[in-house]
Amino acid sequence: MTSDRTQPSGTLLGPGDDAAVLAAPDGRVVTTTDLLVQNVHFRLDWSTPHQAGRKAIAVNLSDIAAMGAVPTGLLVGLGCPPDLPTTVVDELAAGMWEEAHGAGVGIAGGDMVTATALTISVTAFGDLQGRSPVTRSGARPGDVVAVAGRLGWAAAGWAVLGRGFRSPVAVVGAHRVPEPPYAAGPQAAAAGATSMVDVSDGLLADLGHIAESSGVAIDLRTDLLEIPQRLVEVASALGKDARHWVLTGGEDQALVATFSADQPLPEEWMAIGSVTEGHGVTVDGAEYEEDPGWQHWR
Amino acid sequence: MTSDRTQPSGTLLGPGDDAAVLAAPDGRVVTTTDLLVQNVHFRLDWSTPHQAGRKAIAVNLSDIAAMGAVPTGLLVGLGCPPDLPTTVVDELAAGMWEEAHGAGVGIAGGDMVTATALTISVTAFGDLQGRSPVTRSGARPGDVVAVAGRLGWAAAGWAVLGRGFRSPVAVVGAHRVPEPPYAAGPQAAAAGATSMVDVSDGLLADLGHIAESSGVAIDLRTDLLEIPQRLVEVASALGKDARHWVLTGGEDQALVATFSADQPLPEEWMAIGSVTEGHGVTVDGAEYEEDPGWQHWR
Repeated sequence: MTSDRTQPSGTLLGPGDDAAVLAAPDGRVVTTTDLLVQNVHFRLDWSTPHQAGRKAIAVNLSDIAAMGAVPTGLLVGLGCPPDLPTTVVDELAAGMWEEAHGAGVGIAGGDMVTATALTISVTAFGDLQGRSPVTRSGARPGDVVAVAGRLGWAAAGWAVLGRGFRSPVAVVGAHRVPEPPYAAGPQAAAAGATSMVDVSDGLLADLGHIAESSGVAIDLRTDLLEIPQRLVEVASALGKDARHWVLTGGEDQALVATFSADQPLPEEWMAIGSVTEGHGVTVDGAEYEEDPGWQHWR
Repeated sequence: MTSDRTQPSGTLLGPGDDAAVLAAPDGRVVTTTDLLVQNVHFRLDWSTPHQAGRKAIAVNLSDIAAMGAVPTGLLVGLGCPPDLPTTVVDELAAGMWEEAHGAGVGIAGGDMVTATALTISVTAFGDLQGRSPVTRSGARPGDVVAVAGRLGWAAAGWAVLGRGFRSPVAVVGAHRVPEPPYAAGPQAAAAGATSMVDVSDGLLADLGHIAESSGVAIDLRTDLLEIPQRLVEVASALGKDARHWVLTGGEDQALVATFSADQPLPEEWMAIGSVTEGHGVTVDGAEYEEDPGWQHWR
């Protein structure tokens, strides 16, 4: 799992002792943990172990980015049924390391145990580089709402897989392995983002978390929301609505944040709405008519 | 799990956002993670949920102490079968918080998910207060080997429970909830301990880790090893050998360390042997005749 791997310089003491030691140059450490269980949070008939490994790391590093922090390292606990082929563990580990290395970090340690179902626990660490953490509670009336990263792709992939198809690869791949815009988190924090969250439950649902925590209302403008042509084509083939995927699809791990209106947005960010007095999330000034909640596959 | 709980001052941002923020005053963070699965690592017919919760926290905080660090916080992931009574979760959380508060820290966040078996993932954090981490690899010939905390008690409790008894309470309780000497870890580090490990696999096995990592031999002297009268009585009743429990019993989470011989040991520490040139671990100069490996219950 961690032997023969290259640890980055922030891993001050790697695997093999009672605990690992990671650099925390800021004097604070941002940290989050997720537990993922086979056939509850991932399916190895829909994803390869390599893809499941990448996704397990990505969803945690995305939470670090959503605080405005840069990732510094990971710990992984792996619970394996006794009859699990070692190739599955090897591929899972390879996927985890690929995603970790892509974000510039390593897996500094962990635990491997016997379990009844394949279980992955990931803890991710990040550094705020002297900035305040960007929470969900700082949005103010007058702020601009902006997004970085993709929306609706994983939901489209999920719909395709659910029909028993394995293509188009672009959307199926998006469900299997998200592409969180890791750098956009610290970028937003440096630009003074007033609130931020990663989109794991769906755009409307996660903006709902910001609206509730901040005590504000949020209105999305669909003329600003890009609906990718590829999603329109897939939706049309399945008799679905691509806009609904963009508004409610989870698991793309896009970042959504609020910014003061009197300054330009950072490069990766695109305005999609505004913050006003009140409460709740509306679309073009009206309540969204469909069920806004993204159901994680479970 | 974390609502309505008092967070210590080191929890800079607690539950409810994408990630938690913990103080890391030293500029480094010591961290370790364990995954515990019901009926693999704990049994709810042998322990209450409250006891299982305390133990899950204790084994992780013990790893932090074994690096010479003071604990600063915890994250917990909980995987619960759909039919798990909420009282079990409440008692588990109460036990976790009791152990955490006893060590001066809080549970700063976590994750609660559906799982097929009750699964607990714990990540613990610690601060080195400016000292170097005490690893397994620094023991030198001439050093004194010393122990802090209890040995053999959990093994005695395990033997009693395995025979279907529920008493004596002192040894059964030791199996259910260890009492790691948390403060003895930083104390040893401040006194210049050259190596340290927590005893989870058994004294001989864990000293074997130090001997191997440090490239030295270790000899234990049984005239220095205290065999508690209570363990002698229990062993006698079961036809077992109390000394064997002390030498090989795991899960008491005692700390064992090596110190330069030319200085007094810190207060909680008791000399039990010495480091020499060579390799392996001996008892009174001879190989230990019994199987030295402690088998965790699984």
